[in-house]
Amino acid sequence: MKKIVLSGMRPTGKLHIGHLSVIDNWINLQEEFDTNFFVADYHALTTQFDDTSMLQENIRNMMIDWLAIGLDPEKSTLFIQSQIKEHAELYLLFSMITPLSWLERCPTYKGQIDQFREQQGKDITTHGFLGYPLLQGADILLYLANFVPVGEDQLPHLEITREVARRFNHIYKTDLFPEPKGLLAKVPLLLGTDGRKMSKSYNNYINIMSETDEISSKVRSMITDPKRIRKDDPGNPDVCTVYSYQKIYNHEDVVEIEQSCKAGTIGCMDCKKKLISSLDRLLGPIREKRHSIEDNKKYIDDVIEFGREKAKVKAQINIEKIKEAMNLI
Amino acid sequence: MKKIVLSGMRPTGKLHIGHLSVIDNWINLQEEFDTNFFVADYHALTTQFDDTSMLQENIRNMMIDWLAIGLDPEKSTLFIQSQIKEHAELYLLFSMITPLSWLERCPTYKGQIDQFREQQGKDITTHGFLGYPLLQGADILLYLANFVPVGEDQLPHLEITREVARRFNHIYKTDLFPEPKGLLAKVPLLLGTDGRKMSKSYNNYINIMSETDEISSKVRSMITDPKRIRKDDPGNPDVCTVYSYQKIYNHEDVVEIEQSCKAGTIGCMDCKKKLISSLDRLLGPIREKRHSIEDNKKYIDDVIEFGREKAKVKAQINIEKIKEAMNLI
Repeated sequence: MKKIVLSGMRPTGKLHIGHLSVIDNWINLQEEFDTNFFVADYHALTTQFDDTSMLQENIRNMMIDWLAIGLDPEKSTLFIQSQIKEHAELYLLFSMITPLSWLERCPTYKGQIDQFREQQGKDITTHGFLGYPLLQGADILLYLANFVPVGEDQLPHLEITREVARRFNHIYKTDLFPEPKGLLAKVPLLLGTDGRKMSKSYNNYINIMSETDEISSKVRSMITDPKRIRKDDPGNPDVCTVYSYQKIYNHEDVVEIEQSCKAGTIGCMDCKKKLISSLDRLLGPIREKRHSIEDNKKYIDDVIEFGREKAKVKAQINIEKIKEAMNLI
Repeated sequence: MKKIVLSGMRPTGKLHIGHLSVIDNWINLQEEFDTNFFVADYHALTTQFDDTSMLQENIRNMMIDWLAIGLDPEKSTLFIQSQIKEHAELYLLFSMITPLSWLERCPTYKGQIDQFREQQGKDITTHGFLGYPLLQGADILLYLANFVPVGEDQLPHLEITREVARRFNHIYKTDLFPEPKGLLAKVPLLLGTDGRKMSKSYNNYINIMSETDEISSKVRSMITDPKRIRKDDPGNPDVCTVYSYQKIYNHEDVVEIEQSCKAGTIGCMDCKKKLISSLDRLLGPIREKRHSIEDNKKYIDDVIEFGREKAKVKAQINIEKIKEAMNLI
């Protein structure tokens, strides 16, 4: 029996190259594990319930992006969270057994509330936002997942999932739930093209679907070592955003690039051209695959339906076990 | 189109004669309305998640009691809440859109927490207990109910349901949800046989299923006017628990009973005998009908399955409309 892996992604809009590393990691996991990946549309509601106008488009685009990048609907269960009613069922059940204090002390809770209040003047203090880690817990434990690929910032949420699993097992005298472990992926931290944190509001990221000229213009606008005035001045790669991208997207040539920069034998424009062509080589096939998928409405519908069926079978089997443990059936 | 009525009852154990008036009221409503009555097993979890050992037995007993008293599975939709996944779905959706403050300021919230802490040394401050009015709201609005038979103490909860309905309609620019109104039933307030509040812990109530000798012993132990020493002393019906029951269960003879008591022409024992025989006349047929239903396992299964199917159709149609309004499909 393969160990079970589960992860989800909020359908907040088009994917950028930062997401690419996350999904590449998922693709690798497909071989070794029983992998389950879902479009987290319920999660999108926690902070965006008041504007869902783009939700359906974003969900579908995310599924297309996943397929274009290389997730395999045969190897993985790719599905849309809200299509599986059992996520909501388990959210309710966990809601009933979880002390409020566990949720109130979650480190990201107050922080995110403040962030939304400051940046958008918006109050997101809803019952569902407070219960967000329980919905994550339900997502994970519904599939009895053993591993969850996470970034370090998500570890506290996973800790609540583990606590809920332990509490459930204890109260209902069962060993049904595993205590899922985080799989810390070696996903490089990517800064925005302007050297700041990558953010939608700064428009400082490169979309996966960018055409060559868009990649080119984003890379050309990147800030390099400001002390390097002339082409043959020695540069300092450590303060150069382009270099931080080269480390990821020109991994094989990165030593040569570093040396040439420091020696002043490669100009910033040539260096940027190298990055542009690497990114284009990387994104070109994804872009093309995406276009061909996009045109095939039926294929996308079939993939979504196939994923729904696969997820539903797993969810239904497990929720029966869960409800049985609670004497609900 | 008939207006829609919905109500539920927690499966906390055997029904007593206080419940009888509530269900008699439901039975009357069956003629005029599209009535939906559910066994609220999810609600039982809000305070009893840590001991569900009796849950299945209690659920089934409640359904049998309902049938014995006279609810009609053809006229009403009689179902078990947790069998309809859409209750949990709508709970999640309402959870996402409802400010925490609405729930924290619910008048019964702090009170019930204190009560459980004092009486049972138990902390019920869970995410689900806080969200309890949202689950009620989901129960009601899932069926687009227009009316909810309530006791006065439940009106604040219904007010939250109305606020959630308004908020949903406003955010998603729809008029899908009605604002359900309370149907204040003329259900008489029944005290316990010892004159205190009727309560499981005092064991001061008469079960619907009581046999004649149990009714008799409960009524014989009832406290009458303590100043009345001899049989022909004049009595004061206003301080007599037996008289408070006569008003309900011997409604036709109550004027005569009052006069005879005041005149000292009827003794307390004779008065109690009158009550015993009235209660036995009332409960006898229910008891018999219950025994015959109890023996018919298949009939009970069929009623539960039939109710599940009827509720499911309604719930599925409505949840589709709700999710469509939210752009979730």
